[in-house]
Order: sequence, then C-alpha cells, then structure tokens
Amino acid sequence: MKSSRRSLLPRAVVLLSGGLDSATTLYFARKKGFRCFCLIFDYGQRHKKEIGSAVKIAQDAGASYKIIKISLPWQGSALLDKRIKISRGKKGIPNTYVPGRNIIFLSFALSYAEAIGAGAIFIGAHIQDYSGYPDCRPQFYQAFGRVISTGTKSGVEKKEIRIITPLINKGKAEIIRLGENLGVPFALTRSCYEGASRPCGRCDSCYFRARGFKEAGIIDPALNI
Amino acid sequence: MKSSRRSLLPRAVVLLSGGLDSATTLYFARKKGFRCFCLIFDYGQRHKKEIGSAVKIAQDAGASYKIIKISLPWQGSALLDKRIKISRGKKGIPNTYVPGRNIIFLSFALSYAEAIGAGAIFIGAHIQDYSGYPDCRPQFYQAFGRVISTGTKSGVEKKEIRIITPLINKGKAEIIRLGENLGVPFALTRSCYEGASRPCGRCDSCYFRARGFKEAGIIDPALNI
Repeated sequence: MKSSRRSLLPRAVVLLSGGLDSATTLYFARKKGFRCFCLIFDYGQRHKKEIGSAVKIAQDAGASYKIIKISLPWQGSALLDKRIKISRGKKGIPNTYVPGRNIIFLSFALSYAEAIGAGAIFIGAHIQDYSGYPDCRPQFYQAFGRVISTGTKSGVEKKEIRIITPLINKGKAEIIRLGENLGVPFALTRSCYEGASRPCGRCDSCYFRARGFKEAGIIDPALNI
Repeated sequence: MKSSRRSLLPRAVVLLSGGLDSATTLYFARKKGFRCFCLIFDYGQRHKKEIGSAVKIAQDAGASYKIIKISLPWQGSALLDKRIKISRGKKGIPNTYVPGRNIIFLSFALSYAEAIGAGAIFIGAHIQDYSGYPDCRPQFYQAFGRVISTGTKSGVEKKEIRIITPLINKGKAEIIRLGENLGVPFALTRSCYEGASRPCGRCDSCYFRARGFKEAGIIDPALNI
C-alpha cells in the first residue's frame, strides 16, 4: 500500500507478545483496516525470546513497533523469577500471574494511542486465559474503558479510544482457525513460558497451544523450526 | 520505631514526585500509621531534578523507595519535549499534560502493592490540578478502583487495595498548612517544571506554589536554598 494511502487509515495500538493470540489479534486489526502500531514489552519475563518473535511478527505484518523496557523490581511471579517453579494445570490464578501486568501494558498503550491519535487499542486476551488471569476478564476491560473516558485528554474531549478484544470469547482452537484464515505466520510465534531455545511442551501455555492445534486440525508449523 | 514493630504496620505504596503535594501525602500516610513504600518515576521529565528531591524526602520520612525508570518514546507533552515551550496560565488542559501519566504511575503502584501486600496506594492529586489534568479528577480514581477490583488477583480474592487521595479537595494553601502541621520538609521539595537549578518562578507550578505559600501565611523555605 502506498504510504500516502496508509496515512489515511485509522490508527490502532496493538499489544504484541510474540504468542499466537496477539499475532492473530494484529492480523485481525490489519484486516479490519487499521494501521497498526505495535507495543512489545521487555519486562524481565523469563521467556524473553518472545520479544524477538514479536518483532518478526510485526515486520511480517508490515506494522511499526516499539519495544518498551520496564522493570518491575518486586517479586511474586514465576514469570519474573526463575527460582519459582512454574505451576501447571492448577485451578485458580496460576503462579505465572504478574501483578498488574495487563494494566501496565494497557496504560502504556493508552499513552501511545493518545500521543499518535489512535482510536483503538487491540489486545488478545481471551476466555481460556481469564479462567486463570483476572486481567483477561471482560469486566476488567470495561472498567479500563471508564478509566480512559475519565482520566485522559481524549476522554475529556470525547475522542474515543476503544479497547478491542477480538478473541475474548474464543477458545484456542477457534483462535487458531481464525489466525489460519488471516494468514498469521504461526511458525514465527512462541508460546512457551520457560524461555528455552525450544518449547518445553509441558507448561500450561505449551499445553493449550498443542491442544488448540489438535482441535483445529492443523499442524503447528512452529514445531518444525 | 523498632523494625519488628514497623513490620506490623499496614503497608502503603506512595507515589512521590519531589513536589510538595506528594511530600505532604507521604507524611499524611505516615501519620495515619502506614509503613510507606515510595515509588519515584524517572520518565524523561525535563524537571529531572525532582527525582533527587523525592529521594531526600523519602529518606527524611524514613520510608523505603524505588526509582522506576520508564520511557515514553512518543511526543506530545511539553514535560517530555524541551522543544515545546511550557504554556502558562491557560484555561483547559495544559501542554504539560503527559498522555496517561497518572494511569501508568498507578499501574506500577498497583503491581507493587499486590507484590508486597499493601492495602493502600496514596497519590497527591488535588482540586487545582484537576481543573487542568483529567487524571487528577475524583471520577478517574473511582474508575481506577474498579480496574483494581476486576483486574487483579487481590480484587478476585477480595483483598482490598484502596486508592487514597487525601488532598483531592484541598487548595494549595490548605495543603501547605497541612504539610506544615505534619512537619513536611518543604525546603527539600521542588515544584518547578523547567528543571533548571533554581525554580523559574514563572511556570504554573511555581506560580501556584508561591500563591499557596502566600495565602497560607508561610514563607517558602525552598526559596532560601
């Protein structure tokens, strides 16, 4: 697309992690006609390799991106502290929960959206995650919408910034089918929490990914890398 | 206070900027019996000197503190971009508004509060600021409270984390009188937006500070440094 036409597209900030959910969300936003500005977070996660995947995905989609480095110099999550063993298959909130993580990510996305005049923020949270992570639940995104309308210049000036969660009610297999239709380069995506050079195949994230591909009847191309 | 007794006190996260409002808020929280954990942000503000002031204030109060460095690699605020002249005395939202700033600060405070088991977050926003800054309005703090109750582990587990804004309805002179009663070391505080070695005396922040001290009938000890 010519850059002059591109500049006319409505803008969206997309939170991109390197996993298949956020990659599908990016391709969904692009398909809907948004010019996408991705935010990728380096927050001390043990699976730092996802950052490189996110960059490749943004490039593949022809989207611009920024990497935001933040430090959360406190303990309390197995995703930040390698000494804590990642819990698997438990009910309730898993120990990979990072306090306030999506709230922090959305805050930066909101700041970026205001600065570039984007009217939408896309995030790939969904039903399976919100069985465990409170910051993946629909009522959280509704509440954050109210923060935007009351606490920002855009809100005061009635310029809407919507939080859009296209995957919120979808299971993993549905997301994978959607991504397949959108042409998401699944081979570039990474889901494993452990951060080793190859997926561990055992953490919740690997498990849900494998089960999703199986249910969708698609072979995970990342397995062949 | 002996450390064993101190460890029994309820914990609070206090957002500390180096200005007199947040210093007064810290002393207020301490007076109310909280053990205070301050967060100080290095976000590329042109008045970076406030960070040093904030550290001295935290130390003076016997509170612990962490400095959080964040980058907001986008334009749009005179506080982040020295090429933009700081507007003065205008109606509406001033150009020192940083998109989403207090939302980002609160997100980190929330993450920290969850990690250390603090039940309160103190922030020194007040009536004069919210005539200009949308993220200083009471309805914003109410909305953020709903984000906490819906989007965090603490919220799900019904462990309350309250956002406390003790100055919200106070004018500058009232805040200064309160600070005087609480023993706030005003000489250590810095308010000027410009970031030069001495306050400029002309920006909105200097103006409101000078008028507040005058109305309170107190001589600003920072003038004698």
